[in-house]
Amino acid sequence: MNNSKPVIAILGGTGQLGTGLARRWLQAGYTLIIGSRDLEKAEQAVADLRNVLAERGISSADVQAMDNCSAAECASIVTLCVPFSHQESTLQSVKAMLEGKILIDVTVPLVPPKVARVQLPDQGSAGQIAQLLLGDGVDVVSAFQNVPAPHLKEDGPLDCDVLVCGNNKEARAAVIELAEAAGMRAFHAGPIQNAAAVEAMTSVLIFINKQYKSHAGVRITGVDT
Amino acid sequence: MNNSKPVIAILGGTGQLGTGLARRWLQAGYTLIIGSRDLEKAEQAVADLRNVLAERGISSADVQAMDNCSAAECASIVTLCVPFSHQESTLQSVKAMLEGKILIDVTVPLVPPKVARVQLPDQGSAGQIAQLLLGDGVDVVSAFQNVPAPHLKEDGPLDCDVLVCGNNKEARAAVIELAEAAGMRAFHAGPIQNAAAVEAMTSVLIFINKQYKSHAGVRITGVDT
Repeated sequence: MNNSKPVIAILGGTGQLGTGLARRWLQAGYTLIIGSRDLEKAEQAVADLRNVLAERGISSADVQAMDNCSAAECASIVTLCVPFSHQESTLQSVKAMLEGKILIDVTVPLVPPKVARVQLPDQGSAGQIAQLLLGDGVDVVSAFQNVPAPHLKEDGPLDCDVLVCGNNKEARAAVIELAEAAGMRAFHAGPIQNAAAVEAMTSVLIFINKQYKSHAGVRITGVDT
Repeated sequence: MNNSKPVIAILGGTGQLGTGLARRWLQAGYTLIIGSRDLEKAEQAVADLRNVLAERGISSADVQAMDNCSAAECASIVTLCVPFSHQESTLQSVKAMLEGKILIDVTVPLVPPKVARVQLPDQGSAGQIAQLLLGDGVDVVSAFQNVPAPHLKEDGPLDCDVLVCGNNKEARAAVIELAEAAGMRAFHAGPIQNAAAVEAMTSVLIFINKQYKSHAGVRITGVDT
């Protein structure tokens, strides 16, 4: 593995958002581990990623498949890309491997069937659930919830920004660097409590997408970066 | 008064956001009433508005000052622009005058001193507080929380969008028309529960403004309007 950049694991990395981020990070030269509860699914996702990268002339992508626990153990930054209903169980299963690391929480607390309606959890946000569950030894950073996943498949910069919330500024800065490497502007957006704004905005974007037949994203205006 | 367009009252209309919206709506030909608990403050705001409009060559602005109750009584669309700590008492005082009308709630549930931290109320959002308090006879529409007020003083289109939440689609459409008249794009953003996303985003924008020394706003991307 390449040690000049952090090794990134994506747990639940077999969906559209996880594989889209993985592909962009691989193209930026990061080492990736695709994690899944089901190793075969992770292997299939890695094979698909290799094909997509080969189409772009990249034959040496540094990516492998693992079960979620091994993926969390082997990475220094771990990204959680699972449905809200699996957030707590997945975090419990990898908690011991996350000490001293950054956990990027992409969880959106959608409550089916009304996913276009904001229904935040009692704890305030999925980001706060993760931070409470993992304790202060893990830097939870909430990000990427508002990225319109279909556009991740495209090449070049994305017309959406990433709002990065977490209690540790250096950890936020590391995730901002990853967002930029994936083709997005990203902003320090405050402590982990502020994840509520971004998570709730996802339901607004789902509503807008239904209403206007779009793949909407969010941009911050009025800030020079 | 001019009856071709709805008469708009702005309660707590003496601040930067209220007078900024009032000026833009007056320039678009609406009839405005500036309401305040303190009639003298409302009269001063109206005098200031007349001066600002005179500088732009407009001498016949249709605007007057009233106490909040009279303002709510005389208007068909009532805008609430007061601090969160005055939201409930102001709504209680004008509740009887709002039946059958649209109440535009601009309240952001900031909890000083940590206004850059999301701290949503137990009811979910200030918008839901207003709808619960006023009952189904009033169409509460939540809007304008994310407008960077300093930019309202400028002329021309604003580089921010308005997310419009409320349970009645026609009422949302009326508020979208008002946002557009004031120089902003506006979107149907879902039921009143979704106000939580927009209200919470205000704390994120306050954090961003401190961090990046900006007057940040939000734009929706990927939607043709």
